[in-house]
Amino acid sequence: MRTDHGLPLVRLGLIGAGRIGTMHAGNIARHVPGAELAAVADARPEAAEKLAARYGTEAQDVDGLLKDVDGVVITSIAAAHLDLIQRAAAAGKPVWCEKPASLTLEEIDQAIAATDAAGVAFQVGFNRRFAKDFAAARRTVEDGGIGTPQLMRSITRDPGPATLRAGIPPWTIFRETLIHDFDTLLWLNPGARPVEVFTKADALVAPEYKNDGLLDTAVVLITFDNGAIATAEANFSALYGYDVRGEVFGSKGMVVTGGLPSSPLVHYDANGLRQQTFRSDEEMFRDAYVQELADFAEVVRGNAAPPVTGADARNALRVALAAIASYEENRPVRIEELG
Amino acid sequence: MRTDHGLPLVRLGLIGAGRIGTMHAGNIARHVPGAELAAVADARPEAAEKLAARYGTEAQDVDGLLKDVDGVVITSIAAAHLDLIQRAAAAGKPVWCEKPASLTLEEIDQAIAATDAAGVAFQVGFNRRFAKDFAAARRTVEDGGIGTPQLMRSITRDPGPATLRAGIPPWTIFRETLIHDFDTLLWLNPGARPVEVFTKADALVAPEYKNDGLLDTAVVLITFDNGAIATAEANFSALYGYDVRGEVFGSKGMVVTGGLPSSPLVHYDANGLRQQTFRSDEEMFRDAYVQELADFAEVVRGNAAPPVTGADARNALRVALAAIASYEENRPVRIEELG
Amino acid sequence: MRTDHGLPLVRLGLIGAGRIGTMHAGNIARHVPGAELAAVADARPEAAEKLAARYGTEAQDVDGLLKDVDGVVITSIAAAHLDLIQRAAAAGKPVWCEKPASLTLEEIDQAIAATDAAGVAFQVGFNRRFAKDFAAARRTVEDGGIGTPQLMRSITRDPGPATLRAGIPPWTIFRETLIHDFDTLLWLNPGARPVEVFTKADALVAPEYKNDGLLDTAVVLITFDNGAIATAEANFSALYGYDVRGEVFGSKGMVVTGGLPSSPLVHYDANGLRQQTFRSDEEMFRDAYVQELADFAEVVRGNAAPPVTGADARNALRVALAAIASYEENRPVRIEELG
Amino acid sequence: MRTDHGLPLVRLGLIGAGRIGTMHAGNIARHVPGAELAAVADARPEAAEKLAARYGTEAQDVDGLLKDVDGVVITSIAAAHLDLIQRAAAAGKPVWCEKPASLTLEEIDQAIAATDAAGVAFQVGFNRRFAKDFAAARRTVEDGGIGTPQLMRSITRDPGPATLRAGIPPWTIFRETLIHDFDTLLWLNPGARPVEVFTKADALVAPEYKNDGLLDTAVVLITFDNGAIATAEANFSALYGYDVRGEVFGSKGMVVTGGLPSSPLVHYDANGLRQQTFRSDEEMFRDAYVQELADFAEVVRGNAAPPVTGADARNALRVALAAIASYEENRPVRIEELG
Repeated sequence: MRTDHGLPLVRLGLIGAGRIGTMHAGNIARHVPGAELAAVADARPEAAEKLAARYGTEAQDVDGLLKDVDGVVITSIAAAHLDLIQRAAAAGKPVWCEKPASLTLEEIDQAIAATDAAGVAFQVGFNRRFAKDFAAARRTVEDGGIGTPQLMRSITRDPGPATLRAGIPPWTIFRETLIHDFDTLLWLNPGARPVEVFTKADALVAPEYKNDGLLDTAVVLITFDNGAIATAEANFSALYGYDVRGEVFGSKGMVVTGGLPSSPLVHYDANGLRQQTFRSDEEMFRDAYVQELADFAEVVRGNAAPPVTGADARNALRVALAAIASYEENRPVRIEELG
Repeated sequence: MRTDHGLPLVRLGLIGAGRIGTMHAGNIARHVPGAELAAVADARPEAAEKLAARYGTEAQDVDGLLKDVDGVVITSIAAAHLDLIQRAAAAGKPVWCEKPASLTLEEIDQAIAATDAAGVAFQVGFNRRFAKDFAAARRTVEDGGIGTPQLMRSITRDPGPATLRAGIPPWTIFRETLIHDFDTLLWLNPGARPVEVFTKADALVAPEYKNDGLLDTAVVLITFDNGAIATAEANFSALYGYDVRGEVFGSKGMVVTGGLPSSPLVHYDANGLRQQTFRSDEEMFRDAYVQELADFAEVVRGNAAPPVTGADARNALRVALAAIASYEENRPVRIEELG
Repeated sequence: MRTDHGLPLVRLGLIGAGRIGTMHAGNIARHVPGAELAAVADARPEAAEKLAARYGTEAQDVDGLLKDVDGVVITSIAAAHLDLIQRAAAAGKPVWCEKPASLTLEEIDQAIAATDAAGVAFQVGFNRRFAKDFAAARRTVEDGGIGTPQLMRSITRDPGPATLRAGIPPWTIFRETLIHDFDTLLWLNPGARPVEVFTKADALVAPEYKNDGLLDTAVVLITFDNGAIATAEANFSALYGYDVRGEVFGSKGMVVTGGLPSSPLVHYDANGLRQQTFRSDEEMFRDAYVQELADFAEVVRGNAAPPVTGADARNALRVALAAIASYEENRPVRIEELG
Repeated sequence: MRTDHGLPLVRLGLIGAGRIGTMHAGNIARHVPGAELAAVADARPEAAEKLAARYGTEAQDVDGLLKDVDGVVITSIAAAHLDLIQRAAAAGKPVWCEKPASLTLEEIDQAIAATDAAGVAFQVGFNRRFAKDFAAARRTVEDGGIGTPQLMRSITRDPGPATLRAGIPPWTIFRETLIHDFDTLLWLNPGARPVEVFTKADALVAPEYKNDGLLDTAVVLITFDNGAIATAEANFSALYGYDVRGEVFGSKGMVVTGGLPSSPLVHYDANGLRQQTFRSDEEMFRDAYVQELADFAEVVRGNAAPPVTGADARNALRVALAAIASYEENRPVRIEELG
């Protein structure tokens, strides 16, 4: 991890004091080199107060925060993203926004337009790209280490037992969960474009919510214009923990990443051997969460372009929307149908 | 491996002296407990002579062989299977037939009918079921160790570089390669039935044969009536060797099998660590190939029912045919459409 | 990692701005919850200035630093440890000191006496105890998960190629390197005491320095009063990187820790599979280095007793001195001979 | 595994129908290419009868057997080895003898002399050399893949719980168990000679037999004339199964072999992941046991020299005797003291 040496201090404001915002706040306050948590805002002022107090900073309303900071980190609910991005752009502040940046193409187009018009940087939070093993997998692909991708896989299984409930939006598994896998697959197949999508999905973890449209298990098959055939897979309840893996098989070899033992410790007893597994995204992607904001700090300093852009978010979203259409119509859907 | 102790000698005749037949002949002659390679036949008599000489047994024509043996092992080309099965049944001899038992539903139905009518046992060569790790995975599923299957995966990548050529039948990847994966998925989801299939496939290894219809890369998505969503995947040219893996994820856990290092030896040097990979089916499934015939010897002795039946072959073939139809029409195809 | 929530701020002063001090300074400044790098001192004022500037803090002389801080982190050369510990004790400040706390029993006894007399806490930097996998191994042993220890192993191989030189003290491999392994073995065999030591050592990496007494390869066999037989092993030049492992075998099982792949990424190509290895202590023990100071911050706050004490340093040192005596005399040496 | 093709049939006679003899008999009868189990003898004729019947061969007395066969496989108790070797030599028959070939230097010298004088081949059963991963480790060392060996390790832990009893000879752990590790270490350090040995050993598994001299836990430190320092370690009761591993660290890298999972199957559940371990030598070294006799069959055919010789047995025995002397006198013992 880079030290603070030589890094001008960047004052970041965080909007959205929920679970993921709390984690990012801690990272900014402590672990991101040359960064300071300058302010916290939340639609619930008491949540902002509490989080600000934890790190000895100020709670503000959004407008106050926007005046005060060098860059904005948006960790609110997805429905609030566009408005916040537009306000940050209007204030001339670089924006980092958690995934999913938006839930519709219209919104992401408006977000891109707003930041482009204002000339502010816009970075999106696809954290897996910043995990060392995923990043090394991408470099191996780029360097030709596996030849041309032919078969790909990206999976996300959230740790169980899941506590699902009525009211979760029906397309959550595609727009909030698999959006990671769609981005990962596009990113691990550099230069190629997705062509067609086919989806099978079901409510297997919590069949009682199927009538509400809540799907908890899904497999999406994606073809690319370079011939690669990819599988994205998600489930909301892996009893053994948080399971995120990627695989790219090509004409010259394969990379596999996202291994499951969370520690090198092996315990042998009369039943054989045992190892522990990852239990949460915060455990598995702890460093990646820091790195994506460290990179954003560099963007704020003007030293780098955003490593994950609004266009990346749009590309992943198009696959998600095609996947939803495919599920609804039980047919392959071409990406170009999405507009 | 069981010893010969207490096992009455079983005299097996092998028909088909090609690569796979030669391997099975060696296993019968040397490694299958209580078995003897009593005769070898082949459409090319000189091939039968050569193989018989290697193991000190006799070359015969099919009729002569059928009179002489306790059971028949058919390792000819798939097109010849039905005729040989029917002749073995007419001769009242138990039959073991390599996969694919047949390439059409009509043929497998006739094969089943012939052996049923004759009251002879009919076993099919899905060797993966006999690999210790795959067998243990199935036991774990049956014992409830992973709960109800929700997501499954079976892959076959043949060792590369592939030497493809014109003249290989177009549907080889479905009927000869993925047929293993279809059987594996059905077998690892006991009690469930496949419902619908969707396929994407391409000629990525050897695009020059795409006009001949030769596909070398395929992914097939299969849904089951217990909700499980499965992926079967194949490719003809894995440069790192023979890659066969299985995964079953369920409501309580997961089994993963078919690991890739072929030896526990790890070599560390200035570039990190290295391990070797499997290079062929004979290397990876050596014991499984012996075990399936050891089990057949027990069938011949009358001590057991065939562990893999004609009905199993038919079920896997239906999935293969649905996968082909899906590829041709680029739509999900229901198994029941196949008749 | 714990957040700063609820943790009173602890102002730490660091003495010794070399490689390891620079790393600890960065951890205090950024990663240790509720800690602040309040001052830096070094025998070379310009080194202190440079390091202080990097983290926006002050360079001071030792006396100034001692007045200014809540606790002291000593990362100077070993020869300076005792004087600094005594001055910190005289100033009434809790002390954390890098290993080896001292190179002689007299010095460690004086350090313990000084801190005891002043009533200040004294913690020693055996970082491996704070690595998650080593800590989990210890918990498994304590919880009876492997029964009574019978065979143990701890190894340290520094990353190569080593750049050895004349002037390195002859007993470095015992007092600076294997001291880690001696502490690890004592700590992983809780309640037991070392009884006897036998050593073989040599200059195999750099035979040209053998005349200077510089040993670079050593194996030390240690017996304990509960019967356990342990091996400690070190080498200064592992071409594949930094290799630190531990193993405890007992009457009911075994724990093995310190695995060698540094990333779950596996790259397969025509030569098999490859994984990367750790290249430095900072890479392998990054979190452990933070955790030991996070725990020290808790000691400074008065919330905890030092998890590694002067007595622990003395116990490890006695084994090191016995190992040296054994090497010199080529005979087993009893710990009690050391006094 | 090689086929029988082109291999003249070799008729082997086995003397000693105990556990290990029964296993070798099965291998000769079934799995060794071009070999036949021509006769079985045992000091207890009924044991010979029973084993012979299992494989459809004849029980004979030793003299009858020696007349009848092309080569002799001795699997009797160690005390009977010399007499049987001498009689086989007198009969002009090539000899394969299980380890330990003898328990004293006098006996091994007489065995070597007898076979040399008769001009018959004499092969010893150090099976680990024939395991694919150990053999590949040796090739890597020979090919310079790890540079010059500096640190080595070989361990043997027999599967537990052990059922020890009075009457087991006191030095069993050195002469019957660690003899494997001594041979492995000498063989993995080609061209080097052992110089000095130091031993610590105890009765930790079954302290009640310590008065009988029965040791069940031992570590032996061995130095070589090329500087390498090696550790051999044994224990009679590993609850997690049969644990045999080797490690050679050198100036350019390391090989590690004898990995512990016995199957690639991984089972994940709420407690993490689990894998199975080896439970016996027959499971771990099944192929090696066949290969050593396949190689002996080639020796009998005159196509090869014995891959493990009487001199190899003598060299390992010298280390074992030095280890015993070191234990008894608690001092390092030079190999040359043994004569």
